[in-house]
Amino acid sequence: MKFYDWGSAPNPRRVVIFLKEKDLDIKTIDVGAKGARLNDDYLASGAERMVPGLELNDGSILGEAMAICRYLEALHPEPPLMGVGLLDQAQVDMWERRADMEGIGAVGEYFRNSHPAFTGRGLPGRAETIDQIPELIERGKRRIDWFFEKFDTQIGNNEFITGERFTVADITALCATQFAIKVCKVQIPIAYGNFQRWFNAVSLRPSNQ
Amino acid sequence: MKFYDWGSAPNPRRVVIFLKEKDLDIKTIDVGAKGARLNDDYLASGAERMVPGLELNDGSILGEAMAICRYLEALHPEPPLMGVGLLDQAQVDMWERRADMEGIGAVGEYFRNSHPAFTGRGLPGRAETIDQIPELIERGKRRIDWFFEKFDTQIGNNEFITGERFTVADITALCATQFAIKVCKVQIPIAYGNFQRWFNAVSLRPSNQ
Repeated sequence: MKFYDWGSAPNPRRVVIFLKEKDLDIKTIDVGAKGARLNDDYLASGAERMVPGLELNDGSILGEAMAICRYLEALHPEPPLMGVGLLDQAQVDMWERRADMEGIGAVGEYFRNSHPAFTGRGLPGRAETIDQIPELIERGKRRIDWFFEKFDTQIGNNEFITGERFTVADITALCATQFAIKVCKVQIPIAYGNFQRWFNAVSLRPSNQ
Repeated sequence: MKFYDWGSAPNPRRVVIFLKEKDLDIKTIDVGAKGARLNDDYLASGAERMVPGLELNDGSILGEAMAICRYLEALHPEPPLMGVGLLDQAQVDMWERRADMEGIGAVGEYFRNSHPAFTGRGLPGRAETIDQIPELIERGKRRIDWFFEKFDTQIGNNEFITGERFTVADITALCATQFAIKVCKVQIPIAYGNFQRWFNAVSLRPSNQ
């Protein structure tokens, strides 16, 4: 197996952290090229124009972060990162998707529509020109705040997003938050103390170094 | 258990079809109110401001369509709708998410930003005013076409999206396509003959009546 990653993109980074938490040693290739683009080899490989990608032993490329994680979770169940038991698994599924849609989605909207290197590439995954839309910068910022607010409430006094165990919901929310802070230059508002405490703690995990 | 649905919204409709394919008889409640809004009881219930929701026996509400479907798939494995075996399950995961992001996402973008009843509600899930953005109408339309194109290629000569078995990937793509046609008034281009054949066939399933 080979894993295709791309720079600091938050979407594939979810899988990078997942692999480290599992202590899985899969050859990882950064498919970024100059100009903040995917390189020609990757685009010619038959993969979607998106990362992450997991090349399987038959040469096919499995895409979509949670499809990859769920596949690896079944092959390597320990430590469990997608819930234990049906109800816990359902909660992890639910909160991971919210972190994806509302966290990764928000930072992506802000970043893709504001960064000069992504002029004409307002959405990932297509070769066509997709104009940046200035209104989405402000909307993306608001969405990042709503993401912090919702997850601050969900975390409450818990150690992790769905309770006592670190899961893919934490991984996705962590990747969204790091991208918000480092790349979008958005800070966690002081009012969201639970979120800040959670972020400080999960940031220190060895898988995030 | 109770299931919370809302009119012709494509997101909860995925679960409605899933329940019928499984022949599961779960009490379903439409939580829509006048003015294309969620009703006050549902908003006060502690659910997210979103559908679908599955109320569990402890009164908590499980959200997010695939979290609900995966939970029910484990409780009621037959017929399998989320793949059989690890690799098939991964393919279904991958294509379901693409149908979600690129199909449901596209029709939602088009519809939320164009329909007069959704003025000030350009995104779901929040009580705040979120302005419609006219540029997203055109972008949504383009995304619908890209969705048709990608899935036309994927379907090829297969009966279903991931091969020989009807799955949640088909359900999500079906719900996106029906909403595109009935509500967004977008037709499947003639060039996408595989997609049209697939759509004609899956539309006729008893679960879709």
